[in-house]
Amino acid sequence: MSAFKLRGYVSLADDFRSGKTTPRAYLDDTLKLIAERDGGIGAFVVVNKDAAAKAADAATARWRAGQPLSPVDGMPVGIKDIIETADMPTDEGSPLFKGRHSHRDSASVHALREAGAVILGKTTTTEFASSHPFHTTRNPHDPARTPGGSSSGSAAAVGAGMLPAGLGTQVVGSILRPSSFCGAVGCKPSVGAINRLGSHDQFSQSCQGAIGATLADVWAVLRAIADRAGGDPGFVGLSGNVDFARRSKPNRLAVLQTGGWAMTTEGARQAFEGARGTLAKAGVELRSRTDDPQIEAVEQAMADALPLTLAINAWEGRWPLNTYADLDARKLSAPALDRLKTAEAMTQREYAELVARRDAVRTRYEACATRYDACVTLGACGAAPVGLGSTGPTNMNVGASLLGCPALTVPLLSDQGLPLGLQLLGRTNEDAALFETAAWVAGSAFARDDLVGTIS
Amino acid sequence: MSAFKLRGYVSLADDFRSGKTTPRAYLDDTLKLIAERDGGIGAFVVVNKDAAAKAADAATARWRAGQPLSPVDGMPVGIKDIIETADMPTDEGSPLFKGRHSHRDSASVHALREAGAVILGKTTTTEFASSHPFHTTRNPHDPARTPGGSSSGSAAAVGAGMLPAGLGTQVVGSILRPSSFCGAVGCKPSVGAINRLGSHDQFSQSCQGAIGATLADVWAVLRAIADRAGGDPGFVGLSGNVDFARRSKPNRLAVLQTGGWAMTTEGARQAFEGARGTLAKAGVELRSRTDDPQIEAVEQAMADALPLTLAINAWEGRWPLNTYADLDARKLSAPALDRLKTAEAMTQREYAELVARRDAVRTRYEACATRYDACVTLGACGAAPVGLGSTGPTNMNVGASLLGCPALTVPLLSDQGLPLGLQLLGRTNEDAALFETAAWVAGSAFARDDLVGTIS
Repeated sequence: MSAFKLRGYVSLADDFRSGKTTPRAYLDDTLKLIAERDGGIGAFVVVNKDAAAKAADAATARWRAGQPLSPVDGMPVGIKDIIETADMPTDEGSPLFKGRHSHRDSASVHALREAGAVILGKTTTTEFASSHPFHTTRNPHDPARTPGGSSSGSAAAVGAGMLPAGLGTQVVGSILRPSSFCGAVGCKPSVGAINRLGSHDQFSQSCQGAIGATLADVWAVLRAIADRAGGDPGFVGLSGNVDFARRSKPNRLAVLQTGGWAMTTEGARQAFEGARGTLAKAGVELRSRTDDPQIEAVEQAMADALPLTLAINAWEGRWPLNTYADLDARKLSAPALDRLKTAEAMTQREYAELVARRDAVRTRYEACATRYDACVTLGACGAAPVGLGSTGPTNMNVGASLLGCPALTVPLLSDQGLPLGLQLLGRTNEDAALFETAAWVAGSAFARDDLVGTIS
Repeated sequence: MSAFKLRGYVSLADDFRSGKTTPRAYLDDTLKLIAERDGGIGAFVVVNKDAAAKAADAATARWRAGQPLSPVDGMPVGIKDIIETADMPTDEGSPLFKGRHSHRDSASVHALREAGAVILGKTTTTEFASSHPFHTTRNPHDPARTPGGSSSGSAAAVGAGMLPAGLGTQVVGSILRPSSFCGAVGCKPSVGAINRLGSHDQFSQSCQGAIGATLADVWAVLRAIADRAGGDPGFVGLSGNVDFARRSKPNRLAVLQTGGWAMTTEGARQAFEGARGTLAKAGVELRSRTDDPQIEAVEQAMADALPLTLAINAWEGRWPLNTYADLDARKLSAPALDRLKTAEAMTQREYAELVARRDAVRTRYEACATRYDACVTLGACGAAPVGLGSTGPTNMNVGASLLGCPALTVPLLSDQGLPLGLQLLGRTNEDAALFETAAWVAGSAFARDDLVGTIS
């Protein structure tokens, strides 16, 4: 399927320790691959080569001395361009902010630097991490297709084997969908699990997360951030640790269709049937809406996840769109101006009702989710669609955002000869358990050890 | 006591309608008073006269046409200088950010402009709205004394009769304390009640609030913001309306000492005894820790409100202090560097315990508060202390911040011949009820109609 081999980082720890390879050599390979491939993809807004080389040399010395700062010491990471970086501008994917420089790191970027990571460059995002793609970023598996969005560049760079990991954000489907489209592992953590300060990302159900080559790379990035920056203020932050050697076989999985099922492609539904077969053969009990009234209740509650989410986001996005429109409305996309118009017609009372509805959906989901090891569904509606003017449907991704629960997509399936993710949803604030389940699903049921990786 | 008469705005609505006076005339008086008084006080960082005149003229025309945009149409408002403004820099009270310009309004400032308010200028704040006063701002009632902080300039400008209202923020005692010291009405609303986006103010128990000449001016400012910008994302925002004609006599008030009582001055305690007498004489039943075991339980839970708050804030303030220190640590105060050091020695697990302790205190408070119309205590430990190097003790103000409940201070008392507030604490998300109780306390029990005002 893919011409590109995903390139993990954290599983190389033993080689870094022994000197068989080094973070600097890894970075040099990375830069070579970017030079070869990114011209046709466009995943990066900017690459900070000199600073990266210096950081990789320092990491090399630490691994050689047996004193790495963390499992991600020396890992080249791409930063979605709505997240601030002290040494690179933050454009937010908008012509309004071309070259704008805050001269500060986000909480997550600062934490990654403290953990030794190499902040390699900024990756493309749609305008304000919403729908409109001002950048031309192409799917690494087919240049005529979208990489998905809004975390377009991080997903494309990982899927093209250029990067082991990138930061993303999701309030609708902005991590899971591009990860599925580009053939990468993606994690949208529990709401509040990763500190979002210093990212232009204010929505109540938004999360910062990571896209990577393996489950271990993704977890290591998230753990490194949470250890040093915690979660959003008032939230404890990502909890627990994952032992990737100890894969946790689920007894029971709940199959969710979510409100997005009607939008899935035939190929995607066939792929999902195949996945059910693989899991059943491996001894997992699967239950769906027809077997369990509590799952049926969740499905009904989630039927309008997308319009509910868009309405919540509209009110919460009134600012800063209004002050950006004051600055220069001509530099905003038509969809952004539409969202502002919608927001300005809303009232506080309407928003109160929306939040109450979301609370009710979450309550119903958590009641059901306690009875299962995880929930399973498609990582996207199908393969990445043709065309670069849209980043594709979010219908299969918005569920986890509305629920606030952790969700992973792992590129275990395919549709139209292109990557497709299997999505796993966990219980809120039990992100580590979800990773352990996913490690068993990918490594044991699907025999894809290469997507699991190790942290040693 | 005070040489300055507090100057309200919203109670002039009938005069604006009739043409007896105009918002433009009010602004001209305001500018004249600032020219006369602010040299000796230093409440303003910058005053934007030209833009203010234009905005006041537009408001004048609207009132004349009988079509004001809101009760605050034409009201000159001062904006604490950690809150972003499109037409003025935002220094955060730090030499590191002298003249920094974001070219955007905060959610609250944008909402106030939509409501017709005149964004007159930026008011001084201590460094990053924390403890260190880089600006020299003096108490309007005695230039040798602090105005309090961190919302120093907004409180001093209102207390000196220069402004009818200013925006402030509070995470420890930054609205209530300066309001008490400067003889102004101050409100720290329920946590999440006022949208904080676009303010450099990320703490989980922080709130944006207002300081004003009357209860009506303060409420009108908060209501105007919440109608247009709501609360923090995920929070419904300030709820309800207040009818200042309908004063709500409380049947029962709970007297709280809070952990700060040991720090109060003798004069403050005497003044508070007098207030108890006034309230009792007006027919209110007062109960305290010795009368009600549930109040005693609250008192015990709140005994360490200050250290608990400071520990929570330390972890939550790690960012952005770390990235500011990277930028130029020499431009940070010694207390800021100390806070960063404390934060860097903390762990996620320690923070989790602190948040759990705060949750427990809040639960205990709410259980007790439902049995009373409101709680009553001192607005500060005493009169503003002498000296400009510190903004004074926060011990009597931190309680409401920790609890997340709404709190008002009304300048009904005095200590050492200087202003002192009576503080009222309400139930979380019942801010409107607290204002109605406060209107009765100030207007009926203390016969201070001038501190109540009207919205018509």
